[in-house]
Amino acid sequence: MQPARRVLVGRDPARTAEAAERFGWDQASTDWRAVLEREDIHAVDICTPGNSHAEIAIAALEAGKHVLLEKPLANCIGDARLMVAAAEDARSRGVRSMVSFNYRRIPALAYARQLISEGRIGHVRQVRMSFLQDWLVDASAGMRWRLRKAEAGSGVIGDLGSHLVDLCHALLSEPIVEVSGLLHTFVPERPGPSGMEQVDVDDAFWATARTASGTIIAFDASRVATGHKASLVVELYGAQGAIRFDLQRMNELEILDDLADPSDRGFRTVNVTQDVHPYLDGWWPRGHVLGWDVSFVNQLADFLECVRVGTDPEPSFSDGLRAELVLSAVSQSAASGGGAVDVPLA
Amino acid sequence: MQPARRVLVGRDPARTAEAAERFGWDQASTDWRAVLEREDIHAVDICTPGNSHAEIAIAALEAGKHVLLEKPLANCIGDARLMVAAAEDARSRGVRSMVSFNYRRIPALAYARQLISEGRIGHVRQVRMSFLQDWLVDASAGMRWRLRKAEAGSGVIGDLGSHLVDLCHALLSEPIVEVSGLLHTFVPERPGPSGMEQVDVDDAFWATARTASGTIIAFDASRVATGHKASLVVELYGAQGAIRFDLQRMNELEILDDLADPSDRGFRTVNVTQDVHPYLDGWWPRGHVLGWDVSFVNQLADFLECVRVGTDPEPSFSDGLRAELVLSAVSQSAASGGGAVDVPLA
Amino acid sequence: MQPARRVLVGRDPARTAEAAERFGWDQASTDWRAVLEREDIHAVDICTPGNSHAEIAIAALEAGKHVLLEKPLANCIGDARLMVAAAEDARSRGVRSMVSFNYRRIPALAYARQLISEGRIGHVRQVRMSFLQDWLVDASAGMRWRLRKAEAGSGVIGDLGSHLVDLCHALLSEPIVEVSGLLHTFVPERPGPSGMEQVDVDDAFWATARTASGTIIAFDASRVATGHKASLVVELYGAQGAIRFDLQRMNELEILDDLADPSDRGFRTVNVTQDVHPYLDGWWPRGHVLGWDVSFVNQLADFLECVRVGTDPEPSFSDGLRAELVLSAVSQSAASGGGAVDVPLA
Amino acid sequence: MQPARRVLVGRDPARTAEAAERFGWDQASTDWRAVLEREDIHAVDICTPGNSHAEIAIAALEAGKHVLLEKPLANCIGDARLMVAAAEDARSRGVRSMVSFNYRRIPALAYARQLISEGRIGHVRQVRMSFLQDWLVDASAGMRWRLRKAEAGSGVIGDLGSHLVDLCHALLSEPIVEVSGLLHTFVPERPGPSGMEQVDVDDAFWATARTASGTIIAFDASRVATGHKASLVVELYGAQGAIRFDLQRMNELEILDDLADPSDRGFRTVNVTQDVHPYLDGWWPRGHVLGWDVSFVNQLADFLECVRVGTDPEPSFSDGLRAELVLSAVSQSAASGGGAVDVPLA
Repeated sequence: MQPARRVLVGRDPARTAEAAERFGWDQASTDWRAVLEREDIHAVDICTPGNSHAEIAIAALEAGKHVLLEKPLANCIGDARLMVAAAEDARSRGVRSMVSFNYRRIPALAYARQLISEGRIGHVRQVRMSFLQDWLVDASAGMRWRLRKAEAGSGVIGDLGSHLVDLCHALLSEPIVEVSGLLHTFVPERPGPSGMEQVDVDDAFWATARTASGTIIAFDASRVATGHKASLVVELYGAQGAIRFDLQRMNELEILDDLADPSDRGFRTVNVTQDVHPYLDGWWPRGHVLGWDVSFVNQLADFLECVRVGTDPEPSFSDGLRAELVLSAVSQSAASGGGAVDVPLA
Repeated sequence: MQPARRVLVGRDPARTAEAAERFGWDQASTDWRAVLEREDIHAVDICTPGNSHAEIAIAALEAGKHVLLEKPLANCIGDARLMVAAAEDARSRGVRSMVSFNYRRIPALAYARQLISEGRIGHVRQVRMSFLQDWLVDASAGMRWRLRKAEAGSGVIGDLGSHLVDLCHALLSEPIVEVSGLLHTFVPERPGPSGMEQVDVDDAFWATARTASGTIIAFDASRVATGHKASLVVELYGAQGAIRFDLQRMNELEILDDLADPSDRGFRTVNVTQDVHPYLDGWWPRGHVLGWDVSFVNQLADFLECVRVGTDPEPSFSDGLRAELVLSAVSQSAASGGGAVDVPLA
Repeated sequence: MQPARRVLVGRDPARTAEAAERFGWDQASTDWRAVLEREDIHAVDICTPGNSHAEIAIAALEAGKHVLLEKPLANCIGDARLMVAAAEDARSRGVRSMVSFNYRRIPALAYARQLISEGRIGHVRQVRMSFLQDWLVDASAGMRWRLRKAEAGSGVIGDLGSHLVDLCHALLSEPIVEVSGLLHTFVPERPGPSGMEQVDVDDAFWATARTASGTIIAFDASRVATGHKASLVVELYGAQGAIRFDLQRMNELEILDDLADPSDRGFRTVNVTQDVHPYLDGWWPRGHVLGWDVSFVNQLADFLECVRVGTDPEPSFSDGLRAELVLSAVSQSAASGGGAVDVPLA
Repeated sequence: MQPARRVLVGRDPARTAEAAERFGWDQASTDWRAVLEREDIHAVDICTPGNSHAEIAIAALEAGKHVLLEKPLANCIGDARLMVAAAEDARSRGVRSMVSFNYRRIPALAYARQLISEGRIGHVRQVRMSFLQDWLVDASAGMRWRLRKAEAGSGVIGDLGSHLVDLCHALLSEPIVEVSGLLHTFVPERPGPSGMEQVDVDDAFWATARTASGTIIAFDASRVATGHKASLVVELYGAQGAIRFDLQRMNELEILDDLADPSDRGFRTVNVTQDVHPYLDGWWPRGHVLGWDVSFVNQLADFLECVRVGTDPEPSFSDGLRAELVLSAVSQSAASGGGAVDVPLA
């Protein structure tokens, strides 16, 4: 196998070359198809908008390149299913694929997942997950591509909702089978380049969901939650304990053991920066705050390690499809008055 | 008017007498009808279970006694409407009536209401309200009257949900007009005196709701939220600010001013124990923690002051009916698959 | 024994009578000596300024009345020693005495004391205790009696420092034997009724202290800690665990078990409102916030129960003297440049 | 000027070469003197233990290399003064020097410093600074070089205390002129390779300090503060406001404006990750948690920018000496019973 070269691909030749230089890439290119044909390229990290994911990812997998793909999998279910098929086919040839749901790689969330799978909080009865931002609070702020359905595919549900759903699937190790939902646009029009323009994506959504084992999840996300910058909060209530997490304090995990003596029961704030915690052998001495960026570094390390040893990384394209199916069902429920809608498993 | 006597009424003569003695009441009785006929009784505080509210409250109002009534107004909408009619009739005769939604009288929540009505956070776009408890987490804990529909009327929706809805109405000064809901019983049977018994009330509920002005509210409440004793949390996100409250830290109100300079924007934790805050002229020197009990004392003070000066206290029986109508619509939505249901205003 | 009457004693006849009427006392008086001679008075609660404590308390004890005395014990060590002697003498006759250090009766702090005495955190190595207030931040705020040494005896060291020292003694069950200290007045003069007046008491103090077993305590208190209303914070670090408390969240106690598995170690926030916790059988259902006032009610209950069963309540006058001796040594250290000073035990 | 090469210098040839390879350095060397003679070396980052700082730094400065030096400046005041002289001399030749007190480059602390220098909290009256760790709680944990004075120079006072003092100087823009202190070793002996060995450095210290303008600072630091991993807490109380910071939540700064309306006064938790905040133009989109590592990256960026534009970076070697002088005075006070000791300014 030829030694790998690092090639940055973009659309604008000058800006791509400049970025490659600035960030230390070996080369720059504006022709992704040509790059996929090179022998010295072993893996690709696809960070384009969702509407080009299917075309590039399928081509890369067919060319035998391992693929790390920015979430969401695709802008429509049809594309997503084609991508899953391509990934299945590639897997049989030893080619790996992975969707970039980076929050799985926050150490505290990886640790939470481990605790849940070990049964430490018993069967999880109810979950509360929210992702609150405030960058659209100002009603006079201008129109942009993220607020146009034709370009963005959807609003907060695709952007933040997909993170919530994938993280939920990871934590519970079980897919959602039924949902009810509500989508809303609080600021229905905004100033565009040529006058007021209609916002046709949601800027907040709410949903309840069930898994086959009977867990009930309440989701919500918003871009008009005044005062919140990037508040991803997760709460899991089980028959024998509970777990809470807040991205704003991402090095802390709150754990409650309900089997403890009643006089001493309470949420324990664990500083998830000890040697014994997931991913921590690669980071700073204990107690030193890790930032949001470690989720990406950990993810890349996991991806490359899977490529190296020849195992399948997760979340897979199938996991990505499963998240899409849940979000699609939420939108369908919302469009039809909020009643419950079944979610197909694939 | 004859000087008032304080008479405690109960069902068991011995226990009622003992309680009256212990807590310093003037007399004890087991005949509430007889007590309602006395000239030295000016007002009654009705703390019986919901299924006797209508009978006692209507009789009291007809007897010209001012009524403070434990929430919820009644166990069914029919009774509630009769009670509203009786209260309207009594009002014309100068007889006052009030429902005991005590959380309106927590100083920090009264202050939040004042800030919202002054427009301090702009139009409220979205609200998150939850009431989490954990006293039913243990699946082996025995059956009790609160878990039998015939006696309790409903589960968490009536018990905690009614507080949430009334508080929402108070904070927004606007009624809810549409809801979607989900009710669930996580532990469907529990050991009773003669074997396993079915639990036929909900131990958790979730709902979304809208007001006429377009505010969207997400409610949830649970008795199986492991680790929570009595966590009533309220978050209001407006076009120009936000407010947060947590009953566990009931002397604090978090206020965000979104019009402040971007470099200094953040939730301000206001210690609502200063002289300038609602109800505080009657309590401890500034900075000293007030407990849950002050909500009842403040409520009683407001009720008696209204009686004294001849104005109508709030929340009125109509307010109580409005909360019932919302909860009834949530149950109806839940029973029919979760689709949106309109809420009548009276 | 003659049935007890409740008599309120004050200096101004009209205001005392009015207060007695308003708060439900049986009688009012302006002659405390006469009241001490009455057969229907069994106990007295002395709430006068410190400079009258010795005279009244000694007379009361000699008259055979049980005494609950507002802290600090006295304004000078000489008086304090006389009071201890009087209390010892009275004890031999079955007459009880107690100093009102109410923070010992906060449930969470009583629970902390219990945990420490059970060895739950091992030997306590270091303690951090602070009491921060901000009512003197404004340098233009006027002179008042509390800022004049002749009347107040001392500044923050006597007012807040005495609480800190007594609480420390109670938590550690061991007296302080050595101290170093610093006192400071940040606003040295303030507008009085006739021009600027010098402030001759401290408005902040800092001290380190040792016990015989080698615990080191860092104290500080201030009236110019901008933003703090009444922040009494206690942190205890032991060889096997740690405990933290903040009066602003007085229903919570943070407990760390250092012998737990390293992956799960963290401060546990225990809601000290469960049936199993100290004093809670007399209060609200679990999870409902208790206020600052319960410390006084609990204290009175303990005092009366000791009187009833014939045991000595604590803190005793000796405990009160011990706190005074520590504070006196801190002042002495501060006055002589901050070097270490031994504290006599009585 | 010759293009720069990146050379990693260590003592063990194999391990240095391996590290250089692993972390992407151009070359490895074990001869720092030879490296200092190279034309393609423009700057050096000295990360050796304190007892070699003087020799290497002075040689580097004389060789015309810009120096970034790990704190503390030196293990003794004599060396520190020589280094200051060397830095002064080098400065006249355009050679830059800087001490690595990385906490100055935490964005929230840089922002705090800016607010204080703008007068936003008025004159700072009192400061509380602590740095708590727990890695020495276990008394059976073995001896190591950091606990031997001959090698480490001092204990927690040099390690954590130097950070506290430099940060204090930076925040107040004013040096400390007087101190009192206490040092203590809670675990006086630990198992070494050949039996129990005496620990001759402190594992905790406490100090009070004054500046010329009258600010009083209370410092403490510990390695036996059970439950704390790396808790650097700073609180500043000014005549018109207050600021609080906790390294465990290093993206948050709490700011209190005491001139605000009394009903709305409270600590505002500002998420210091907005574009308008110091250093944030180089980092993630707003609201995303930054880790401890950014303090080093920011520091290096500042150092290199100063080298590039030809200005002096801070903290200078003089600043480093000033911190040493304060700590030396604390040790001197502690050794002589805790009385106040003057701090020379250079």
